[in-house]
Amino acid sequence: MRDIYHDELDDIGNTLVTMTAMVRTAMERATNALLDGDLAGAERVISDDPQVDAQREDLEERTFQMIARQQPVATDLRVLVSTLHLVADLERMGDLALHIAKVARMRYPEIAVPTELRDVISQMGEVALSLVDKVAAVIEGRDVALAQAIEVEDDSMDALHRKLFTLLLSDNWAHGTESAIDMTLLGRYYERYADHAVAVARRVVFIVTGQRPEPIASGMGPFIG
Amino acid sequence: MRDIYHDELDDIGNTLVTMTAMVRTAMERATNALLDGDLAGAERVISDDPQVDAQREDLEERTFQMIARQQPVATDLRVLVSTLHLVADLERMGDLALHIAKVARMRYPEIAVPTELRDVISQMGEVALSLVDKVAAVIEGRDVALAQAIEVEDDSMDALHRKLFTLLLSDNWAHGTESAIDMTLLGRYYERYADHAVAVARRVVFIVTGQRPEPIASGMGPFIG
Repeated sequence: MRDIYHDELDDIGNTLVTMTAMVRTAMERATNALLDGDLAGAERVISDDPQVDAQREDLEERTFQMIARQQPVATDLRVLVSTLHLVADLERMGDLALHIAKVARMRYPEIAVPTELRDVISQMGEVALSLVDKVAAVIEGRDVALAQAIEVEDDSMDALHRKLFTLLLSDNWAHGTESAIDMTLLGRYYERYADHAVAVARRVVFIVTGQRPEPIASGMGPFIG
Repeated sequence: MRDIYHDELDDIGNTLVTMTAMVRTAMERATNALLDGDLAGAERVISDDPQVDAQREDLEERTFQMIARQQPVATDLRVLVSTLHLVADLERMGDLALHIAKVARMRYPEIAVPTELRDVISQMGEVALSLVDKVAAVIEGRDVALAQAIEVEDDSMDALHRKLFTLLLSDNWAHGTESAIDMTLLGRYYERYADHAVAVARRVVFIVTGQRPEPIASGMGPFIG
């Protein structure tokens, strides 16, 4: 029979998977809302975000209580402390999906994304979903190899981000400053979502191997010009 | 006589103050480099950032070891767990100063900030430094009232951020898309630096009062239009 301690640990793991599914759904709906001018979808992401925040708060508290009451050994403590970081990253991913949904809502009934940028934004959305699917699999299975695949996929997000700037800076850009600002912020939101996915993957590697991965890249920062 | 445990806790607190001073210096140098086209200052911020990352890693590890070895009671555990969050926020503040320095370097020998935006960027820099000074004081003195003053000051950062967008969207904007992208990203970096300062302040309130403050605002998100 399992003991209560490990049942609780499993339960926290399951809630992490649920939270990951929530921020996946938020990103999927936000990207669709953005590309299709779907106001209801955008509103849904916005109204659901407090549930992600509540999930974080609940997981943080449960994790804290487990550390306080159970005085876990180093290996279990590593899992619990990493959980505290994971939930912070997952909540932030939800926030970034929320920001994307807000751009969609702000521009409604217009569509925020100009035609010539649809492809690149659509691809950024696809990479974001593929990343978060891998994150869920990593959390469930603690698959270190998959965590490494996430890093490679993050590189493709960075490439799409560079492509976005190239399109914005082309001589053909005819959508004005407001649209350029929207697209700059959107690009940043997708890129940061991917960064946090990588951060989650790195934390799981740390849980499994006990080795701290290289410091997480802190976003690409500026790279135009 | 103090015991070793509390000496170690004090030592972690002192290192947190040191780390706060580092991210303050980074922001001060980055803003000066940005406004004056000071390449050496920008390079200094960029080359010093790994020290901030190393400080985080060291503090995380020391905090983890204290939890593992000392099995602290709930109150002390709350301080230690909050420390893990604080160092993550502080490291991120260092990253944001780094991003600002990189914009300064990328545009050198030009100055990235157009004349009509100098005032607003200069003020954002000043608010950022004032915030981080208060954060240091909060960490040192655990002054809950000062933590609340930080929230008010964050509102003035948000107001400056809105003013920046108003200027970018004015009919007089004559600096093209590339500069608009630079300024959009810079505005976001200053605003996020402030957000993380608020997050640190909220964590300290949590340490002192045991009450979790309202969920941290997740950046203003888009608000143009």
